[in-house]
Amino acid sequence: MRADVHRFSLKDPSDVSGLNEAIEKGDIDPGKIVAVIGKTHGNGLVNDYTRGYLTLCLSQLIGGRMGVSAESVRKRVPFVFSGGVEGVLSPHYVVFMVDPDADASGEEKSLAIGVAFTPELSPSDVGRQRQIDATAEAVSQAVTSAGIESPDDVHFVQVKGPAFTTDDIVAAGNASLTCATENPGKLMGFGRAASALGVAKALREIPANEALEAAVLHNFDAYSSVASVSAGVEVRVNEIIVAGLSRTWSGPLTIAHRAIKDALDIDSVTDLARDLGLSPGPQVPAAQARRIRAAFVKCEAQRDGTIRGRRHTMLNDGDIDQQRHIRGAVGAIVAAVLNDTALFVSGGAEHQGPDGGGLIALIVEKMI
Amino acid sequence: MRADVHRFSLKDPSDVSGLNEAIEKGDIDPGKIVAVIGKTHGNGLVNDYTRGYLTLCLSQLIGGRMGVSAESVRKRVPFVFSGGVEGVLSPHYVVFMVDPDADASGEEKSLAIGVAFTPELSPSDVGRQRQIDATAEAVSQAVTSAGIESPDDVHFVQVKGPAFTTDDIVAAGNASLTCATENPGKLMGFGRAASALGVAKALREIPANEALEAAVLHNFDAYSSVASVSAGVEVRVNEIIVAGLSRTWSGPLTIAHRAIKDALDIDSVTDLARDLGLSPGPQVPAAQARRIRAAFVKCEAQRDGTIRGRRHTMLNDGDIDQQRHIRGAVGAIVAAVLNDTALFVSGGAEHQGPDGGGLIALIVEKMI
Amino acid sequence: MRADVHRFSLKDPSDVSGLNEAIEKGDIDPGKIVAVIGKTHGNGLVNDYTRGYLTLCLSQLIGGRMGVSAESVRKRVPFVFSGGVEGVLSPHYVVFMVDPDADASGEEKSLAIGVAFTPELSPSDVGRQRQIDATAEAVSQAVTSAGIESPDDVHFVQVKGPAFTTDDIVAAGNASLTCATENPGKLMGFGRAASALGVAKALREIPANEALEAAVLHNFDAYSSVASVSAGVEVRVNEIIVAGLSRTWSGPLTIAHRAIKDALDIDSVTDLARDLGLSPGPQVPAAQARRIRAAFVKCEAQRDGTIRGRRHTMLNDGDIDQQRHIRGAVGAIVAAVLNDTALFVSGGAEHQGPDGGGLIALIVEKMI
Amino acid sequence: MRADVHRFSLKDPSDVSGLNEAIEKGDIDPGKIVAVIGKTHGNGLVNDYTRGYLTLCLSQLIGGRMGVSAESVRKRVPFVFSGGVEGVLSPHYVVFMVDPDADASGEEKSLAIGVAFTPELSPSDVGRQRQIDATAEAVSQAVTSAGIESPDDVHFVQVKGPAFTTDDIVAAGNASLTCATENPGKLMGFGRAASALGVAKALREIPANEALEAAVLHNFDAYSSVASVSAGVEVRVNEIIVAGLSRTWSGPLTIAHRAIKDALDIDSVTDLARDLGLSPGPQVPAAQARRIRAAFVKCEAQRDGTIRGRRHTMLNDGDIDQQRHIRGAVGAIVAAVLNDTALFVSGGAEHQGPDGGGLIALIVEKMI
Repeated sequence: MRADVHRFSLKDPSDVSGLNEAIEKGDIDPGKIVAVIGKTHGNGLVNDYTRGYLTLCLSQLIGGRMGVSAESVRKRVPFVFSGGVEGVLSPHYVVFMVDPDADASGEEKSLAIGVAFTPELSPSDVGRQRQIDATAEAVSQAVTSAGIESPDDVHFVQVKGPAFTTDDIVAAGNASLTCATENPGKLMGFGRAASALGVAKALREIPANEALEAAVLHNFDAYSSVASVSAGVEVRVNEIIVAGLSRTWSGPLTIAHRAIKDALDIDSVTDLARDLGLSPGPQVPAAQARRIRAAFVKCEAQRDGTIRGRRHTMLNDGDIDQQRHIRGAVGAIVAAVLNDTALFVSGGAEHQGPDGGGLIALIVEKMI
Repeated sequence: MRADVHRFSLKDPSDVSGLNEAIEKGDIDPGKIVAVIGKTHGNGLVNDYTRGYLTLCLSQLIGGRMGVSAESVRKRVPFVFSGGVEGVLSPHYVVFMVDPDADASGEEKSLAIGVAFTPELSPSDVGRQRQIDATAEAVSQAVTSAGIESPDDVHFVQVKGPAFTTDDIVAAGNASLTCATENPGKLMGFGRAASALGVAKALREIPANEALEAAVLHNFDAYSSVASVSAGVEVRVNEIIVAGLSRTWSGPLTIAHRAIKDALDIDSVTDLARDLGLSPGPQVPAAQARRIRAAFVKCEAQRDGTIRGRRHTMLNDGDIDQQRHIRGAVGAIVAAVLNDTALFVSGGAEHQGPDGGGLIALIVEKMI
Repeated sequence: MRADVHRFSLKDPSDVSGLNEAIEKGDIDPGKIVAVIGKTHGNGLVNDYTRGYLTLCLSQLIGGRMGVSAESVRKRVPFVFSGGVEGVLSPHYVVFMVDPDADASGEEKSLAIGVAFTPELSPSDVGRQRQIDATAEAVSQAVTSAGIESPDDVHFVQVKGPAFTTDDIVAAGNASLTCATENPGKLMGFGRAASALGVAKALREIPANEALEAAVLHNFDAYSSVASVSAGVEVRVNEIIVAGLSRTWSGPLTIAHRAIKDALDIDSVTDLARDLGLSPGPQVPAAQARRIRAAFVKCEAQRDGTIRGRRHTMLNDGDIDQQRHIRGAVGAIVAAVLNDTALFVSGGAEHQGPDGGGLIALIVEKMI
Repeated sequence: MRADVHRFSLKDPSDVSGLNEAIEKGDIDPGKIVAVIGKTHGNGLVNDYTRGYLTLCLSQLIGGRMGVSAESVRKRVPFVFSGGVEGVLSPHYVVFMVDPDADASGEEKSLAIGVAFTPELSPSDVGRQRQIDATAEAVSQAVTSAGIESPDDVHFVQVKGPAFTTDDIVAAGNASLTCATENPGKLMGFGRAASALGVAKALREIPANEALEAAVLHNFDAYSSVASVSAGVEVRVNEIIVAGLSRTWSGPLTIAHRAIKDALDIDSVTDLARDLGLSPGPQVPAAQARRIRAAFVKCEAQRDGTIRGRRHTMLNDGDIDQQRHIRGAVGAIVAAVLNDTALFVSGGAEHQGPDGGGLIALIVEKMI
């Protein structure tokens, strides 16, 4: 098997011209697309419809090129979009392709990709044991299908789970289903948290008896160092994309990750760049930066209202959501090091990396 | 003469407990305070009243301690507050003190401070030749009074000028005074621009025949590399604080500055840290970071909608003002390098540093 | 000819289930749809993509049902969506249908509908004479095609024109085309203003020699009392929908309109309700409110910062755009009178109704 | 006793010129001021400092005029400011004065005012039984001190309670005090809810055995029809202002109130106007509107996401807080009827009026 990754910029959330041209030119075989991850123009909160808009446009393009329905494409391919390109961040999407027939020499590890889906989740499943367990099971399937031998070789697990509006939550209540919270924005947080614990359970980052509903948004010592979870109203299942390394795969790409300890932890970003053979000085030179194929970052506003002992104001702000603040801040730090603004930076890092921090994963071309 | 600088954190915009305690302990003589610069909790736009609130509280504290009226303090001491602590930034204020009786050895240069005020400016003066020229004259006075010998020894000029609401602009119109624009937010930009050209004129960064009203928001090649201008509804004159180096001053502090080329220019930040004897790796170690007494940053969203060839979305955003975006982004980069979040980061860098970039000035304790 | 109008609620901007069911049941013949006007979930400003999303979904539904491409539907049918359902407002869309073969008795006037399009407009055409004149010509075509005999019988002209992002404006500049302003949000205002003057010119509400570029955003005494203009990045031409009364049409519907003098002018709303045989007390009873098929409102924040002598703060607000404020306010007043929240309420009423006010048009079932 | 009420407009939150002039002219005796209620320019959420700013300025003015400290004024006089002048609303404050020596004929009821304070409340008291009971006790004191004989004669009870930032909540947690929620904005809601139940308990609107912590944000059938509660970081106790009618008071003013059933309930507003002898048609004529001395409104976004069966989007909005939406909407409806925009309109009506609705109280000059 052989994985490849292409990144395209987005003029607006319906702009699929980049992928279209690549298919046109023969650079991309639409049938080999297994997943898409991207950053769209919306606010990344409940009422962000740019994620669904791009999902529709891309699935129609791919379906049209393959002669199948957009719906069948969406059933097979996770489209994981996170809204919010605050500050220097640039809207874009990353297309993951797998050639199942390519040979691998077995000598060196290459980027390996697996995808899976949970069954449909209702508003009352969100943040609950059912979401933890269904996610864990789907992650295990994706790891197996990717032929990744050890959990240590998993470097990034992207999950996209459902968000629900007040409409849905009220309907659930009318059907006697109790939701973890009645606040739509907060329910997104419960869903991210439970899904992250599911990833941690599957990869044995935490023991199964800690991957419990009671730990959700409570025991922040329990976390996955490779899970990145987003939620959006445009999906009804947890979609899973696992990215790691395997000798059964060939190809030009590799992947690595690091935990981010807090919102100022620039050292982990430069360390990760060095892990992958880049030379951040502190900025990766433009010529080297071209080796970067995709960057994924999770981050969050520290819950105690401080960073390294000084107050921040993100949690008290009634005008700008804390997620928009922290994405803009951590996104800028990573962009300044990587010399690249087309980064997937997602807020809401509950149980995703250390409390108050997050994680970063980078897919780059191997050094030659 | 001898300058000293103290920085205090702000729990809310009325929190003057830090300065109060320092006066109480005898660390600060209120009569020696010549200027205060700070970052408050508001949005930094027209309807930000946190700047005026802190000005009132600080001037009352200082006046009370000196046995004079708050009003007389405000006439003598510029209080320059910029709203907006986006992302990791921390609300704080920096108190500048001058001891006029201290001796200087004349052997090494030390931090030198001068202040001055323009006459009152009306809404129709903002962005106009009168504001340019009045600012230039006041800057020259401040440089002279600070005993700074060469324009090259000026490292930072903070200007705080008036902002006006729709009320004021309409009243001006009724009095047959034409304003540069009827949009209150945009008028703040005109004022910052004209004031910056005034600084550049005074310091001979541009020839006098380019420091013209016609250049305001038009010829962005004309700029000052040390000017930082804010505007707020709480002042009616341009208040000027000049910080530089002079052999006629003694004391433990020094200052340096660098231009910021664009929003990703982290290298200029680490270069400046190195200029001052710090060792950013890329982060300044915590022990060294304690030498930092104050950091001042100007930045802006690049006008062409891109950064290094990739789109940003700051200028199209109807929910978050571009200044809030860019402060959060550039502020985070500087904070990550300096290991310090109590930074004065101000947006709206028209003619303040290179177009699309800005500048950074740092006051630190001298190496021993 | 015979016109009919159906209104459907929107769960999210991709929710076309209402129209789909109506087509399914045979209530609506998709081939007879001539225009759609609606209110979507976005902010109604430059970065609102919910308008384009719904346009895509509706045009695909209609095209699919007719066996033609969505693109060909969009060329024939104006889809005019305005973002922003502040306060009590409810997302929805109104479908206009025309049966060209229906007979008319010629005895009474009925709702008449005409549509037309201008040629493509570039960023540099926006707010300029070309947009005024092209709009005027298209309005005249639409009036003629609708068989409306007198300008007095025109009660509502909806125009949807192009908005451009910083990207487009910079590209225009690079091609030596000067735009009316470089601010994307402000350019939307120029476009609304010029288009409204175009409507006023076509309907002879102002003499042709006042429908000039020089009057745009300048002479607010020149206005149309039936024009409602929105702008969005999802179109590149001015799309025109004319609604009026004509004896050559039959059907169950009628239309009327009133100017709104200022943001508190509730009397004009109750007067209009009475014009149409409703009995607002001040609220139209629920049973009567069912006769309402569609309501269209334009409004704006008074430019002098006051309403009836008291200050408002809409023009100084850096957190919420003035259009979002005024839509929420005037929308609530109209909703409270009409007992109906599915109203098309659009801000930015430059030259659309009296300065500081706007207009309201209502389509209702005739009294029997 | 004799009560009088004056209303002053606010140019900015430090603008106390109106009261200053009235004192100067002898219209107001500062020693007779017993309470101030107002609407300031901020967002009305946790990070709104305009409330504290105005409190400081007014208490300094009053203290200065009386020759006492501002602090002693704040201990005696409740200053209840609610931020947020969305849409047509106008910033202002209402000064309540009591002349204890004035005679009353005992023939007709007149406006009666009482004030009281609870002991200091900690973050962990908010939303809890202690806040309910302390509020109930203080309300009873205020009613008694005002000489109001029956709970039916109480028409308005304004409560201002403490809000806490993340800082305070974390500090409470560190001191082993559990707060009702860790979210600062949500804690404001808990505080409003418990305080409203306290009012309802004191006035016997609900039985004491329903005024329990368990009912807070849970049993919305338990409510007060005269309670209006705001929260802000600038206070640490619940401040209580009771306004009602009593034969032991004289003076030109009267008060009445009505419940507001939902966000479209304009009929209750016109009914209340008629109760007080005004003639809303639906708008109160300007000449009559001059009789209005103060208007107080509470309102909220309906929890099920609908209004009269149609969806609203206020609870899903990540850009504008639901309170800002609903204040702008209901405020506009009331303003249009009363022909007056200087209204105290406050969101967050938990247990204040019927669920999904709120209440309105009006102080007007008696008919002659």
